[in-house]
Amino acid sequence: MAIKTLSAKAAAALDKELMSTGAFSIDQLMELAGLSVSQVVYRVHPLNKGNRVLVACGPGNNGGDGLVAARHLRHYGYQPTIYYPKRSKSDLYQRLAKQLEDLDVPFVEDFPSALKSTDHIVDAIFGFSFSGEVREPFPAVIKALEETKLPVTSVDAPSSWNIEEGPPKSGVGSSFHPEFLISLTAPKPLVKHFQGRHFVGGRFVSPSIAKKYEFEVPEYQGLDQIVETSPTDQKL
Amino acid sequence: MAIKTLSAKAAAALDKELMSTGAFSIDQLMELAGLSVSQVVYRVHPLNKGNRVLVACGPGNNGGDGLVAARHLRHYGYQPTIYYPKRSKSDLYQRLAKQLEDLDVPFVEDFPSALKSTDHIVDAIFGFSFSGEVREPFPAVIKALEETKLPVTSVDAPSSWNIEEGPPKSGVGSSFHPEFLISLTAPKPLVKHFQGRHFVGGRFVSPSIAKKYEFEVPEYQGLDQIVETSPTDQKL
Repeated sequence: MAIKTLSAKAAAALDKELMSTGAFSIDQLMELAGLSVSQVVYRVHPLNKGNRVLVACGPGNNGGDGLVAARHLRHYGYQPTIYYPKRSKSDLYQRLAKQLEDLDVPFVEDFPSALKSTDHIVDAIFGFSFSGEVREPFPAVIKALEETKLPVTSVDAPSSWNIEEGPPKSGVGSSFHPEFLISLTAPKPLVKHFQGRHFVGGRFVSPSIAKKYEFEVPEYQGLDQIVETSPTDQKL
Repeated sequence: MAIKTLSAKAAAALDKELMSTGAFSIDQLMELAGLSVSQVVYRVHPLNKGNRVLVACGPGNNGGDGLVAARHLRHYGYQPTIYYPKRSKSDLYQRLAKQLEDLDVPFVEDFPSALKSTDHIVDAIFGFSFSGEVREPFPAVIKALEETKLPVTSVDAPSSWNIEEGPPKSGVGSSFHPEFLISLTAPKPLVKHFQGRHFVGGRFVSPSIAKKYEFEVPEYQGLDQIVETSPTDQKL
């Protein structure tokens, strides 16, 4: 039986639909997506086991999810540091960065140095809209993520992976295997190649939207904004 | 010793500051406020003890918090019904209502009838910006809330109460004493007159903003967006 996943194309259409007929604003969706990412980090890295978290943010929506997650993590008691080398000029991203600055969360420019003083990492560099080549300055960052022994939590996709095909066959990212992955709204086809602990977030999708895109809303428990599933769980 | 509360004027200034120098959008703040309201309901009304919840929404931001809370409650497994007689024409409120409609949450016009088929109530009619007289059609609604034996959770203020002085001395609302109250960001002076279980929500306030407005960020636990406190707790 096939795993129910969402292709890059379908994920883009779903996002567009949530913000048109679904009537969500991007602020709302990003807040809830980032909140779910923060809940995964909280679950896999209890606060007393190292609270320094390096959040690597890319230039698009995946990076925005990382910025929101970092804010929530700060409120939970973690000490986030942000690597955000290609800042978006859009108002929303500037506001998300300002919210972190107001909490005295540091932004750093030297990724390898930052890696030396963190306990774990959030990879919010590229999401479902990634395709093609990893652009500067991210190849060195992905390479550092491949080589580090620190645990990495990837948001929606291990950055550099092809959304449909998984890890690149060679070069940057070909041996990048994060420990944790949170799929937003629904897993993408690349989960077939993912071996770590897998979560789904996005507790805002209506059953009718899920039905239209041929996936099922996972069975969230209690107040959780995330649910842990096997990447090959038939229910997804 | 005085309780650290936020006057109506200070609460309005704080809200304005969060959305200007604080760089939050109203969509973000309302999402987090509504989420915290939903967590109070979840805590005081476990799902297996009656999951029908009637959410009474006023025309302003308090009503918006109620609409967001209702959506989260629906996702948790509650069966919300919305009473929202004075719909705001602003885009945000229309979108929040549409998000509920997409989840098949019913909107009703007859409040007394709705009261007969619910297990508990959220009062999101008026918040910290309320002053003066209760306008139509809300006097009958407040009266019904005074008379019902069902438990009520008020958002930021028991509706009809004066933000500084508490319950009106006579007339509509003078005997309205909800069981639960969630103060958003910080308690308002009216909490001195509140006898039920009291919560604070708003886990987005930075320590520097709290300091400026002379209150303390409460000690939230874990992932909680709320914290239960005594209304007269000196820490607030």
